[in-house]
Amino acid sequence: MDNASPSNMGVDYVVTFSFTAAKDKDEAVKQFEKLITTLDGIGMRTEVRDGSDGKLLVFVRVRSAQKLIGEVYRSRVKDWLHGVRPAAPDTETQRSLDKEHLTEAERFRIIHAMLTLPTSEGGAGITPGKGQWSLVEGIFPLHDHEFNKEWMKTWSTKWTLGLDELGDIRDRFGEKIAFYFAFLQSYFSFLGIAACIGAGAYFILPQYSLTFAVLNCLWSVVFVESWKRQEVDLAVRWNVRNVSQLQSKRARFQPESEQKDPVTGEIVKFFPAWKRLVRQSLQIPFALGASGILCILYAVTFAIEVMISEVYTGPFKSVLVFTPTVILTVMVPLITGTLSNIATKLTDFENYENESSYEAAMTQKVFIFNFICSYVPLFLTAFVYVPFGSTIVPHLDIMGFMAPADGVDADGVAAQQAVFEINPDRLRKQMIYFTVTAQAVNLAMETIVPYFKRAALTKAKEFQQKRSGKYSPINDSPQEAKFLSRVRHEAELSVYNVTDDLREMCMQFGYLCLFSPIWPLAPVSFLVNNWIELRSDAAKICIEMRRPVPHRADSIGPWLDNLGFLTWMGSVSSAVLVYLFSGEANEVGGFTAAGLLASVVFSEHVYFGVRLLVRIALSKLDSPGLVKEKQERFLIRRRYLQESMGVDEETEANEKEVVPRDTANVATGEERSFWDQQEGAKGAIEAGLSIIREEKKEQ
Amino acid sequence: MDNASPSNMGVDYVVTFSFTAAKDKDEAVKQFEKLITTLDGIGMRTEVRDGSDGKLLVFVRVRSAQKLIGEVYRSRVKDWLHGVRPAAPDTETQRSLDKEHLTEAERFRIIHAMLTLPTSEGGAGITPGKGQWSLVEGIFPLHDHEFNKEWMKTWSTKWTLGLDELGDIRDRFGEKIAFYFAFLQSYFSFLGIAACIGAGAYFILPQYSLTFAVLNCLWSVVFVESWKRQEVDLAVRWNVRNVSQLQSKRARFQPESEQKDPVTGEIVKFFPAWKRLVRQSLQIPFALGASGILCILYAVTFAIEVMISEVYTGPFKSVLVFTPTVILTVMVPLITGTLSNIATKLTDFENYENESSYEAAMTQKVFIFNFICSYVPLFLTAFVYVPFGSTIVPHLDIMGFMAPADGVDADGVAAQQAVFEINPDRLRKQMIYFTVTAQAVNLAMETIVPYFKRAALTKAKEFQQKRSGKYSPINDSPQEAKFLSRVRHEAELSVYNVTDDLREMCMQFGYLCLFSPIWPLAPVSFLVNNWIELRSDAAKICIEMRRPVPHRADSIGPWLDNLGFLTWMGSVSSAVLVYLFSGEANEVGGFTAAGLLASVVFSEHVYFGVRLLVRIALSKLDSPGLVKEKQERFLIRRRYLQESMGVDEETEANEKEVVPRDTANVATGEERSFWDQQEGAKGAIEAGLSIIREEKKEQ
Repeated sequence: MDNASPSNMGVDYVVTFSFTAAKDKDEAVKQFEKLITTLDGIGMRTEVRDGSDGKLLVFVRVRSAQKLIGEVYRSRVKDWLHGVRPAAPDTETQRSLDKEHLTEAERFRIIHAMLTLPTSEGGAGITPGKGQWSLVEGIFPLHDHEFNKEWMKTWSTKWTLGLDELGDIRDRFGEKIAFYFAFLQSYFSFLGIAACIGAGAYFILPQYSLTFAVLNCLWSVVFVESWKRQEVDLAVRWNVRNVSQLQSKRARFQPESEQKDPVTGEIVKFFPAWKRLVRQSLQIPFALGASGILCILYAVTFAIEVMISEVYTGPFKSVLVFTPTVILTVMVPLITGTLSNIATKLTDFENYENESSYEAAMTQKVFIFNFICSYVPLFLTAFVYVPFGSTIVPHLDIMGFMAPADGVDADGVAAQQAVFEINPDRLRKQMIYFTVTAQAVNLAMETIVPYFKRAALTKAKEFQQKRSGKYSPINDSPQEAKFLSRVRHEAELSVYNVTDDLREMCMQFGYLCLFSPIWPLAPVSFLVNNWIELRSDAAKICIEMRRPVPHRADSIGPWLDNLGFLTWMGSVSSAVLVYLFSGEANEVGGFTAAGLLASVVFSEHVYFGVRLLVRIALSKLDSPGLVKEKQERFLIRRRYLQESMGVDEETEANEKEVVPRDTANVATGEERSFWDQQEGAKGAIEAGLSIIREEKKEQ
Repeated sequence: MDNASPSNMGVDYVVTFSFTAAKDKDEAVKQFEKLITTLDGIGMRTEVRDGSDGKLLVFVRVRSAQKLIGEVYRSRVKDWLHGVRPAAPDTETQRSLDKEHLTEAERFRIIHAMLTLPTSEGGAGITPGKGQWSLVEGIFPLHDHEFNKEWMKTWSTKWTLGLDELGDIRDRFGEKIAFYFAFLQSYFSFLGIAACIGAGAYFILPQYSLTFAVLNCLWSVVFVESWKRQEVDLAVRWNVRNVSQLQSKRARFQPESEQKDPVTGEIVKFFPAWKRLVRQSLQIPFALGASGILCILYAVTFAIEVMISEVYTGPFKSVLVFTPTVILTVMVPLITGTLSNIATKLTDFENYENESSYEAAMTQKVFIFNFICSYVPLFLTAFVYVPFGSTIVPHLDIMGFMAPADGVDADGVAAQQAVFEINPDRLRKQMIYFTVTAQAVNLAMETIVPYFKRAALTKAKEFQQKRSGKYSPINDSPQEAKFLSRVRHEAELSVYNVTDDLREMCMQFGYLCLFSPIWPLAPVSFLVNNWIELRSDAAKICIEMRRPVPHRADSIGPWLDNLGFLTWMGSVSSAVLVYLFSGEANEVGGFTAAGLLASVVFSEHVYFGVRLLVRIALSKLDSPGLVKEKQERFLIRRRYLQESMGVDEETEANEKEVVPRDTANVATGEERSFWDQQEGAKGAIEAGLSIIREEKKEQ
């Protein structure tokens, strides 16, 4: 990074073209020629440089500013028509751009759309790595190093991120990433409250305190509901409300037939909704199967672990203790990998028409694995091992492992039962592992490891090149050498996927919802972790990843539903935890099924009630973004209404006594004589008064 | 009705002015003069006639067609700006009216708005019976007898009401009433299915069959969810989508202060939302208190009834049996009346800014009473009397009623216990009472009784007038006599309130959700009842009520939430019923708390799952109304996009090589030389190919 040059040479996008990946030279030449002519065709200027390692770097830049302005204007008009923007952009394109500055994110987004949209929608239709663009490896913008430096400096000295900082991210990296940071910041602030409650509970309240569980649930509900509102508020501020409805078509959608679109009247590719619905129903057996397999794996491993660590006393215990860890480390990635493949195939089979629905469907499937891998070990300890362990464990000894240790006995089971004792500290230890150790490990894996990994890889490559004697220094011109070496470096970085970071935070939130009563200090640990996470994620984007293509979004997407689901599960899980473990920690087993169910039913309904109340309360409070939106709408409304008022005044000026349209056909003589009896208001008043007088006289 | 004249004389509205209600003559004269001049001021033509009984009939008609057209146009523009209509009306007012015919309902609605809107919003501000308009008794349009006759004739010969019939109602009576009939029709069609299921279950399945309970719950969920969709569809067809957001201000709203509106910048009357929220929280103790009182009343009455009818064997039993009925008939109206008063005061105190939120808040409070009065008797029988009756009843005998009958006994309680036996048929009898008898009685009360009541009252009045010698025949001119006598008759009718009819249907639906397993034939009874109801409601509006003022609505309002709530409750109630009573009906008492709770938890979660699935499935299917809406939006979109395309083509014509705006400041020499190395696409291709060739050579 030390050879970073501040100037990006006015490059909009870099397209990497890997010609060595081609089957033969002809293919590479043909595809490369097509790439350049296609880019030229949509009004791009190109420069090509050697990318080393059999790659070409194609630098792309919009040829004419007018062309870009036209695209921006059209995109804004489209936004307006779809209800994303309250007001239409100024009809004069240049003026509309002066009024509303073009941010870097908008610029990059629109150019990216020009490059990747299907040709039928006016783009170049470049789909990296797929179909006819198999040799195009990637399309990415270049980092703005000055901004990045400034950004990381500001953040490392600031405690919280305000709207300004989030706005900066939005202007640079687009709304999708900005929403992640906004969520992270909001979650971080709420964690502050949770940490206070947790610390207080840890020092003052007894273990598994009902008060703490209730406060914790309330906290989670308030957080999710207020984030929902904040999300809407931000979407309005950032002019992206409803943007998720403006979906871009999926290139791999496979139509069943061509049909006349009932809306547009055009012939479109069609896939019946009911057929997709039938295919989607396959998700249910898939989800059940996947969770079944994973749960069984965890249960078996858990059983082995308990046997070895707490019952087994034979030889090699210190080595055997690692068996479960080894099994999980080997098996979990293997199984989740296979399941992920099946999930991808299923989602492909569901044949979505646009990218966002495809992504949402995939996210929901991935959430199932994540849920099980993250929480099932704790569920097993809390709801199986502790309450039923003393009954189950002796039956697990099918191998007769412990028999020698206890001495052979005719009444074997009973003897073991006497020896086996529940380890009441196991649950807490496990919780601490997941909320402290695992988080720290994860953070390290995310930030430090990739750095060393890349450094090592670079060294290895250099070494290999030198050994094979094929090391050919690239002939860069001296002025460009620094710049090109930086671009080559950036081309080697991975692509940033914001969904992974979001998932991580949601799963973390799940620990708080589901298991906080086990160890109330968990939010404190998360608070510390996330303070670092917030900054390390920024650094990750700046240093370890290619600059992300800015995408728009109006929320954190399907994860929002998952957050809601976790709070719900939390209300059940907390109730069970408190019911099972409160009172003396040792006095386990003194529970009844009815009591357990009653506590679940009660807690769940309280949860529904509280959620409803929080929603109502929050909906009554105005947020600045919504006020802004209303204001904009009001201004447009007033303008139009004034115009229509003008029309009306005009018609009133040449007003004459006309029979209303609808009654024109019944304007009989009878009717005319009815209406002509009293002349104007005066006549009517006189007639009325005479009736009043008469009546009063009579009385 | 026999003297009905077909012509309405071109009258738009009749305002009844009751001058005898004034304290003195002066007040009457002043208010009357003000009424006529106000009407004149907003462009109305008036004619006054004697209304008999100390009333004046003020006939009102819009003076100028142009004025009306202007108002219609402005209302349509307002709709468009609030997103109710997808397209703006034609800027030329007359043309916009030709394109979209002015229905009678729209005409009456707009004139009604002119009469009743506050003066600050351009209306006459007439609020019948309130404030400065204390003597104005009512404002109503005149019935269109020809349409009414036609309407009732069509309906009595048709089995189902299609979109055409609903459209007719909408065009005449407005969307609010049309939505009621649409709901009734949709509910009626679904009842057909429920009746088939119910009849099948009655003859084939055992009593309290689980299968039937599941089918019944599924039916209720599908009905509510599909009605939700149908509602949206109708709202789109009728151009009233989102119309509920266009709320009219409440005249009785009491502002706390004046504040600058953050949206409009105007000084407006203000009441802080948090304060209203605090006041609304009073609803919780109110709801608890009200339900507590009513439940206690029902429980006490129930206990008395059980004692007398099933335990007591003393004298006067045949008379005493009616005690509970008498208590309920006296006490329930008394208590609900008092509670309704409190509810009204509470809702007033909550100080809503607009009519619709006031109405919704009131509806929710009224729903609580209705819920308790309708369902608690059955709840008590099913969930208290049958399972616990044999334990509780003997303890109720504090009066020692039954002792003489059983003979005095030292071990009194035990003896009674032996005598007392649960009446297993009571629940079914009660259910039949509520679903057959009560419905029939209600229908009769609604349709036949008011007719006789009115006839009797008229006779009584005539008799009284004759006796007091004050009978003064009104001096109508012969041509008008028939017409005026008809208007006087219509002025005496009551005002139709569609909410009452809606409530009745929702409560009926509740019996199906909650108690169907008790007597599966209930839907058959409802099917018959509602076939008549659908027609008798139409007849009621035509004959027994004043013609309703057409109001707009985009749904059945808060009742929709109540329907959802009832399906939820139904999932719980059905589970309990099936768990408690399935198997041999006599074998009651063999239940455990755990089993009961487990069945509730299971059923409720299945309900949530099913509801989610039904929602997803329905959301995937397109409805004709939504297609229409999309189509309209698409057409507007295409027009604007074509316009903006034109702009773009123009800019491309005078396109020149310009440095993009954002990078203009970094157009250094270094950058220029970077981009100038390869000329056009050709140069770039050549440069790229040479790199490819070189690399390949090396390999």
